[in-house]
Amino acid sequence: MPVKVTLPDGSVKEYPDGTNALQVAESISKGLAKVVVAAKVNGEIMDFHRPLPQECTVLLIKEDSPEGLDVIRHSAAHIMAGAVKRIYGDKVKFGYGPPVEDGFYYDMEFPEGTKISEDDLGKIEAECKKIIESNFPFERKDLPKDEVLGLMQKTGQGYKVQTITENIKDPTASIYTDGDFTDLCEGPHVPATGRVKAIKLTKVTGAYWKGDQKNAMLTRLYGTAWHSQKALDDYIKRLDEAKKRDHRKLGQELELFMFHEWSPGAVFFMPKGAVVYNELMSFIREEYRKRGFQEVVTPQLYNKGLWQLSGHWDHYQENMFLLDIDEDKFSLKPMNCPSHVLMFKHRTRSYRELPLRIADFCPLHRNEVKGVLSGMTRVRKFEQDDAHIFCTEAQIGQEIAGQIEFVNRVYNEVFKMPFQAKLSTRPEKFLGKIETWNAAEAALEKALKDNKVSYTINAGDGAFYGPKIDFDIKDALGRNWQLATIQLDFQLPVRMGAEYEGQDGQRHHPVMIHRAILGSLERFIGVLTEHYGGVFPLWLAPVQASVVAVSPVSDEIAAYAKQLHQKLLDAGLRSEIDLSEDNISAKIKARELQKIPFMAVVGAKEAAAGTVAVREHKKGNRGVIAADDFVSNLRRDVAARTSTI
Amino acid sequence: MPVKVTLPDGSVKEYPDGTNALQVAESISKGLAKVVVAAKVNGEIMDFHRPLPQECTVLLIKEDSPEGLDVIRHSAAHIMAGAVKRIYGDKVKFGYGPPVEDGFYYDMEFPEGTKISEDDLGKIEAECKKIIESNFPFERKDLPKDEVLGLMQKTGQGYKVQTITENIKDPTASIYTDGDFTDLCEGPHVPATGRVKAIKLTKVTGAYWKGDQKNAMLTRLYGTAWHSQKALDDYIKRLDEAKKRDHRKLGQELELFMFHEWSPGAVFFMPKGAVVYNELMSFIREEYRKRGFQEVVTPQLYNKGLWQLSGHWDHYQENMFLLDIDEDKFSLKPMNCPSHVLMFKHRTRSYRELPLRIADFCPLHRNEVKGVLSGMTRVRKFEQDDAHIFCTEAQIGQEIAGQIEFVNRVYNEVFKMPFQAKLSTRPEKFLGKIETWNAAEAALEKALKDNKVSYTINAGDGAFYGPKIDFDIKDALGRNWQLATIQLDFQLPVRMGAEYEGQDGQRHHPVMIHRAILGSLERFIGVLTEHYGGVFPLWLAPVQASVVAVSPVSDEIAAYAKQLHQKLLDAGLRSEIDLSEDNISAKIKARELQKIPFMAVVGAKEAAAGTVAVREHKKGNRGVIAADDFVSNLRRDVAARTSTI
Repeated sequence: MPVKVTLPDGSVKEYPDGTNALQVAESISKGLAKVVVAAKVNGEIMDFHRPLPQECTVLLIKEDSPEGLDVIRHSAAHIMAGAVKRIYGDKVKFGYGPPVEDGFYYDMEFPEGTKISEDDLGKIEAECKKIIESNFPFERKDLPKDEVLGLMQKTGQGYKVQTITENIKDPTASIYTDGDFTDLCEGPHVPATGRVKAIKLTKVTGAYWKGDQKNAMLTRLYGTAWHSQKALDDYIKRLDEAKKRDHRKLGQELELFMFHEWSPGAVFFMPKGAVVYNELMSFIREEYRKRGFQEVVTPQLYNKGLWQLSGHWDHYQENMFLLDIDEDKFSLKPMNCPSHVLMFKHRTRSYRELPLRIADFCPLHRNEVKGVLSGMTRVRKFEQDDAHIFCTEAQIGQEIAGQIEFVNRVYNEVFKMPFQAKLSTRPEKFLGKIETWNAAEAALEKALKDNKVSYTINAGDGAFYGPKIDFDIKDALGRNWQLATIQLDFQLPVRMGAEYEGQDGQRHHPVMIHRAILGSLERFIGVLTEHYGGVFPLWLAPVQASVVAVSPVSDEIAAYAKQLHQKLLDAGLRSEIDLSEDNISAKIKARELQKIPFMAVVGAKEAAAGTVAVREHKKGNRGVIAADDFVSNLRRDVAARTSTI
Repeated sequence: MPVKVTLPDGSVKEYPDGTNALQVAESISKGLAKVVVAAKVNGEIMDFHRPLPQECTVLLIKEDSPEGLDVIRHSAAHIMAGAVKRIYGDKVKFGYGPPVEDGFYYDMEFPEGTKISEDDLGKIEAECKKIIESNFPFERKDLPKDEVLGLMQKTGQGYKVQTITENIKDPTASIYTDGDFTDLCEGPHVPATGRVKAIKLTKVTGAYWKGDQKNAMLTRLYGTAWHSQKALDDYIKRLDEAKKRDHRKLGQELELFMFHEWSPGAVFFMPKGAVVYNELMSFIREEYRKRGFQEVVTPQLYNKGLWQLSGHWDHYQENMFLLDIDEDKFSLKPMNCPSHVLMFKHRTRSYRELPLRIADFCPLHRNEVKGVLSGMTRVRKFEQDDAHIFCTEAQIGQEIAGQIEFVNRVYNEVFKMPFQAKLSTRPEKFLGKIETWNAAEAALEKALKDNKVSYTINAGDGAFYGPKIDFDIKDALGRNWQLATIQLDFQLPVRMGAEYEGQDGQRHHPVMIHRAILGSLERFIGVLTEHYGGVFPLWLAPVQASVVAVSPVSDEIAAYAKQLHQKLLDAGLRSEIDLSEDNISAKIKARELQKIPFMAVVGAKEAAAGTVAVREHKKGNRGVIAADDFVSNLRRDVAARTSTI
């Protein structure tokens, strides 16, 4: 019987019995076969030399795809384990060795007395490279479970024994062998060690077996592996760049923000960081105005009665900061929704008032465990560009479209950050009517299509109260951040008894849309600081222009410089002035370090002619122009929120 | 021996022995004598018919002065007590009966079974008026304490007996008699009951004897009294106006803000109130920019370590909301100062950075007792236009002058609210060097004089850490509100170890200036709402202009109205539009009720001519002008923050 293979483009091909995915690749092109590392057969990823079933779909996995890199890294983990065994002998016991984002690790127990540090990574890496050069095939064997168990017992691999007895329910188990190293493993792997074309070991940490503090502390070796040396080099470069751009480092150097042990998980925005914070709020407020949002300012402490009504008391309490007030329990609000419903319910609402779009920058507090707090990205206190839209079911489509357009405006037009959407649909357990869900999901998908947003569907991944769209935003280093979100909620208005009087004179529950574009301002500013490497675009820059006088600073030059500085201030620009007698190149260098976008250098010639010598950050000299043009050019660029990276 | 009297103008006059203050008044003018109710002799206020000492200063107290009104109201309290005694008999026991702001009260114990309600006030007031018509003289007697005690025991006045035994240390005590009523009293009083020219009893409440819950509950009768019927009528009119302007009432009617039992003492600013809130912040931010303030954004939760260091843990803890976090105690910050010192201490500071002016709108929380919470004026959560200036001692004068000018700008120029300053100087217990205090107090006083601010001195009333200036701001109803404040602090920087490197290379503690111009934004908005009676000036108005189409609304009129509405929005103005077919006078009335400053009425004629018929709130028709002029006029007035009442 021939093998019938359906390819991703829908075409169907027939192959002789026993054909494997590699042969399918070769039948398409020799070049393709060289860059394929595994295959997804009937949706399941596997080694490409396993014979294909009689009828199947086949997706060839290329080495530079995310799934291909996972396979390479998983194989690299085996290679590293083999290298360790070669150097440290048979007494090393192995735990788990999975691929992770951008790399892999393997947890191991070294013989007593053997301490591994980062100094040892060099020789292990060298041994890995030898194994790669040998180009050992990765050979898979599917054996009866007991046989594998016996093998692991014989070789003293206690953690593997434990894995087999506790986790493997099938009657068989698979092992993989590359050269002199054999490991319990489900696969898949690259066909041979030579396909791991670039490897680098990166660090050593401790890790509890299975992540449980009650278990033994193992040694975890980390590494990264890529499909080419160039890809590895690029990755190392990105890592270095990310280190340079680390917002905690830049925040300190540029005096944007600080932290203090007395307020863990909360950001102190210093004056320069507060400028960025306030400019972002102004920007969003301006967009709100155009889009019919109304801002409110709300309390932060609420009686537990509110949280009981909203359901947070039962389902979210461990994330809330609780207080004893008036002999009752209160909480700092972790989110705005319930308080906005209170405002909606404050008086009788009519369908004429819908959609009602309520925006709120109120500080929120969530009790994250102290250990996971990190810079601006994991905090306990934050503000969101949060808003809730109360609307009718018929208005869902229009409102979602408006919010997607909003996301487009902010990320595509202003921040020049590309994004992808994920549409999460009805889960197994859900509340509300199926027809409402279907109509809503169709409306969400139509809005994505109409706005030409590229998206994937996470089927069944919506919340029980409604479907949602999350947006992954890509920064300048190619990293993805989930920032914007749009969530439908059929449930909270029902639970909290929010109603409006419809055109039919009857009472109805509105639909609620939870949405944020920037998300937490703290997190967003952290991301933005790294995205721009601290070189904020003109409209966000804490100092936009520096008036720098050339020494010796005569009275004329000083007067002219001050006049220009005042003109900049009067034009609403953030200007500073340097009239010191320091050397001009030192003055310029200090401002380059502070990443100030523009300098207006003024000496005797400029003072006489009413001009400025313009310097732009990193671009240097930009020529001499009239002082008034300098002011009006800056004003124009600020108003346009021009952004370049 | 003649009596030697120094008058307030510095002139010295001689009178025969036994002369009293009334005779001094008569010697100056008959008219003056008629409006004098008491005298301040050597600084002590007393009845004007007591003989003057040999040598003294005399200040005649007129009936319409604050002190004169106090005397009238104190006498009115006796008159009311006498009236009650006439009606309810000798069994009524009297407690205290002092003058209070705008009136007086008397606490009394009625015989068992007698319940007094506001329905009874009419007959008591009528009896008061009979006593006033009788024009009984107020006669003072100074008697041995025991004699007075005996008298009070005999008449069954137990509360008076208690007062004599517990509070009177002198060997003598004074009693006052008017007609058939005698009371233990220090005085002074008007010469005769007829000088209480206008009286009105206002309400009945309960009150514990001496304000202590463990004591008996007495009945408190309130009244008001004035030097003329016209003054009383004006007062009643002001009260009515204040009731109409009550910010809680207007807040509800105009949908500015709301309250909810689940967040006691915290304001929900609805969209319209949030406009006022944000406009005030923008205004203050604009002034900050001109004055070299730098804004910061700060955390709200701090470990007790901060409060122990600042001293709040020991002296302010009962006002703080406490939380258990990370197995330690934290508090929501009740004030910003300690957190600003943390930011100052974040790195080494140089004298070159001073003065450093740090502004912060962060929400603050103070645990006020639930019972005293009231509207916007007594709240638990609020934001201030708070700032701290870190400066050298030499910079105090310049900085204080700058802040007084700031107060001038805000209240005189923008809100048109007159104010008076109170300078509070070194108390008996103080910290720091006397020379520093003297120099600072001189600097404060000079700044007040230089800025032509009228002020009084509260000698010894400063805080232990520094002198201060408080500003009493007068609203449109003539009520005083203490809003702005400027406080010097020599202490906190020392206590918290804040230092800068001086020009001399040595480390010094900066001086800290705590200051707020509006004070709590919540309270200020409450005051402002009443000051303007809800008719906010154009720049603060939640809706600035209404485009109202005349019905029948043709396509041309609708298109023209929409175009105008969009022009207003594009000009940054807050506009709304009404294209309904409702009657034009109904449309106008609805907007008058919402106190919208301007309406642009457009019909066929206006659409054809490109004009608008302008209506201004309360002023009605303001003529027909070009639509573009309407937009630019509004823009101009908003930018100028034009304010009329």
